[in-house]
Amino acid sequence: MTTAREKALDHARLNVDNYLQELIELTAIKSISTAAENQKEVQDAANWLVEKLKSIGLDNVQSYDTAGHPVVYAEKLAAGTNAPTVLIYGHYDVQPAEPLENWTKKPFTPEVHGEDLYGRGATDMKGPVMATIHAVESILAEGNLPINVKFMIEGEEEIGSPNLARFINENVELLSCHVALNPDTGMLGKNLPTITYALRGLAYFELHITGPKQDLHSGVFGGAVHNPAQVLTDLIAGMHDGTGKITLPGFYDSVIDLTEDEREQLARLPMDDEFYFERTGVPELWGEDGYTSVERTGARPTLEINGLLSGFTGEGSKTVLPAKAMAKISCRLVPEQDPDEVYEQMKAYLEANAPDTVTWELKQLAGGIATLSPRDSKWVQAYRDAAKQVWNTEPLFKREGGSVPVVMLFQSVLKVDSVNIGFSMPEDNMHGPDEKIHVPTWKKGIEAIIHFIYNLEN
Amino acid sequence: MTTAREKALDHARLNVDNYLQELIELTAIKSISTAAENQKEVQDAANWLVEKLKSIGLDNVQSYDTAGHPVVYAEKLAAGTNAPTVLIYGHYDVQPAEPLENWTKKPFTPEVHGEDLYGRGATDMKGPVMATIHAVESILAEGNLPINVKFMIEGEEEIGSPNLARFINENVELLSCHVALNPDTGMLGKNLPTITYALRGLAYFELHITGPKQDLHSGVFGGAVHNPAQVLTDLIAGMHDGTGKITLPGFYDSVIDLTEDEREQLARLPMDDEFYFERTGVPELWGEDGYTSVERTGARPTLEINGLLSGFTGEGSKTVLPAKAMAKISCRLVPEQDPDEVYEQMKAYLEANAPDTVTWELKQLAGGIATLSPRDSKWVQAYRDAAKQVWNTEPLFKREGGSVPVVMLFQSVLKVDSVNIGFSMPEDNMHGPDEKIHVPTWKKGIEAIIHFIYNLEN
Repeated sequence: MTTAREKALDHARLNVDNYLQELIELTAIKSISTAAENQKEVQDAANWLVEKLKSIGLDNVQSYDTAGHPVVYAEKLAAGTNAPTVLIYGHYDVQPAEPLENWTKKPFTPEVHGEDLYGRGATDMKGPVMATIHAVESILAEGNLPINVKFMIEGEEEIGSPNLARFINENVELLSCHVALNPDTGMLGKNLPTITYALRGLAYFELHITGPKQDLHSGVFGGAVHNPAQVLTDLIAGMHDGTGKITLPGFYDSVIDLTEDEREQLARLPMDDEFYFERTGVPELWGEDGYTSVERTGARPTLEINGLLSGFTGEGSKTVLPAKAMAKISCRLVPEQDPDEVYEQMKAYLEANAPDTVTWELKQLAGGIATLSPRDSKWVQAYRDAAKQVWNTEPLFKREGGSVPVVMLFQSVLKVDSVNIGFSMPEDNMHGPDEKIHVPTWKKGIEAIIHFIYNLEN
Repeated sequence: MTTAREKALDHARLNVDNYLQELIELTAIKSISTAAENQKEVQDAANWLVEKLKSIGLDNVQSYDTAGHPVVYAEKLAAGTNAPTVLIYGHYDVQPAEPLENWTKKPFTPEVHGEDLYGRGATDMKGPVMATIHAVESILAEGNLPINVKFMIEGEEEIGSPNLARFINENVELLSCHVALNPDTGMLGKNLPTITYALRGLAYFELHITGPKQDLHSGVFGGAVHNPAQVLTDLIAGMHDGTGKITLPGFYDSVIDLTEDEREQLARLPMDDEFYFERTGVPELWGEDGYTSVERTGARPTLEINGLLSGFTGEGSKTVLPAKAMAKISCRLVPEQDPDEVYEQMKAYLEANAPDTVTWELKQLAGGIATLSPRDSKWVQAYRDAAKQVWNTEPLFKREGGSVPVVMLFQSVLKVDSVNIGFSMPEDNMHGPDEKIHVPTWKKGIEAIIHFIYNLEN
């Protein structure tokens, strides 16, 4: 007897060419969230998804207005209260295509060349969004979903999701679930299914140093007045010690050390030093002593200077002693660090180290906790098994250095882990020209989601 | 019998109201060198001076064209080859008057209120220029000059004298002299005649640090790539030690230490810590251990950060790991430091301290030597005596922290010292709104120049 899972997989395989046509249709919609002239197309993409989600039999399909672009919601809760509920995340907005002259394909006339579908948003993330929808469609076409699913597809991810926190906070009941599925983190290569089980948090500051009441003549006053730019560089220089460790008091107190098993898993990733050299072009790598690059970026907290500004920065040689100096400084955090605690640590560092020749102000601009989805949780294991079933290989377990705000929100507001996966690869030019998705991988992605859903069946 | 000196002084006193009217006339000319709409007025001021210098009987009066505004030249070499020749420097251009709303007087309708003549350029430096011309006029009206004089009055000082070095280099013979008189350095108060016997030199650099080939995501790469802004701050922080000394190798090797006598003279200046607190508004002063503020700014070399730029400096929290970072850094030099040597010292410092995780480039933007006019030279003594004769007090001997390019040029091209004096005071709002000159002091200035000239008589 053919199982429900096999029927769904067969259905997906039989219909995958139509599915690809639908992906092409959605990718052709110019839903650039940041562009004033594309506001209608952003709305069109939301409407397209509403119609699509209705057509496959989902319930309560709605486009929720926000102060910006709408959030598309849909659900199928027929599996009953004993079955798990998965909240599937996605975004339908895309990056601008500029500079257009760098494209060899047309960004909004998606076409398949070889094994790839080219088009803005194909990989980030209309492809992954449609893979989840088509997986659910394939199951529903052949019977019932073994679990409850909810879709939440936003239209502002590429502009920093300015209205998503409010939407989630105001709709906790609507979005309540056991776990979230976030197919926006990609995989490391064609046959390298990847689970991103940890994302770093963020604590972003702006530090202002003020010295004299106005810019001074560097000849008349230089030497008797402490230059605020010099004070700033002294303070920043002191934030790292000679081993690459951060010196803010208590900064490492709550950091959870890597286990030996995790280090072994991370060492499996195809991200050796050569990987970093190629992508960055730096003459030498750098980082905290005792850790590999992949550990440094994924599993260790860091402190970066994002911006510096002081005095005269135009052409030529203005001899100014600047009245003030500013730095943007951000820390990437790991579990269990807290951004507010890091703000206090930074303040304590400045109180201890800033000289009394200047005044300073520290602003907290943004913050979010690091998230970790335990590798041995049933949710992560369900996708691990799904990946093995589709790709016949053990998936890679990756810690990601970046911060994904929606995953932080799911963690902090909905109190659920996210299973972070995806079907986009580093060579797919996310945000760049000639963005594409690898069609055979995308098709496998549909199957992987079907397996994932059945693997969660009680 | 009335001496020639006394006759000249009497002539000046008798005609001083006419002289003041002439100063008002010149100050009314809107000779703003930087303003495109005032190019004709700049030319008008040059022509006005040519006519004036001719009218008092000077020879070879000419307006020399440059790539910018003309240099006005005049001479009277009738004292013979055994008499000393003094080159009198001045500039006839002025700063813009903006913001006009900050003026309570009219910038280009000069008027006397109380003891002050208000108007843009009254103090910087049409007043001092006319004082030297009226001194020579008073002498010539009553007889012959006891020394040879040359006038060189430029029209681009307020825009950095871009064409003056070339003019001087191309006219070494024309400008040849025994000493220059530069009445552009002012005095510290109404009854405080001041001789600025030392000016600091300048070595101005731009330092560029380059890391990755493009800006990176600070989450994805932060921790594995050395942040160029961090490298820059480390390097700058290391340029001073904990005692405020500069760490460039060999930086102090050629610095001439202050003598006890000089320190005593500098301590007489009305420039105590309160002076610096008032003018800067800083919470605490700072500087090289073991020196007073006036020594730090006048007699010790310094290193200032004039500008910093890296990464994202707009509003908000862009998580960029910048590809590059830039600083403008300048050193004020004292005798016998050489700007080219300081460039080599800075390069040596960077070679020793820059990590191999980045590349760096050091550009030399501007440079000039420090100048010193020995206090016991006959030229300085001639003005010292003149000041005592007019103000009945020992003049102050000051070292100035700034750099005056024309004095550097006289030193390096014409190989002569400059006697740096003036009749402008700190409260005269040079470059600011309500610029003014104190008329009684200006009148004394004419007499001081007459004395100076006679004091040089063989």
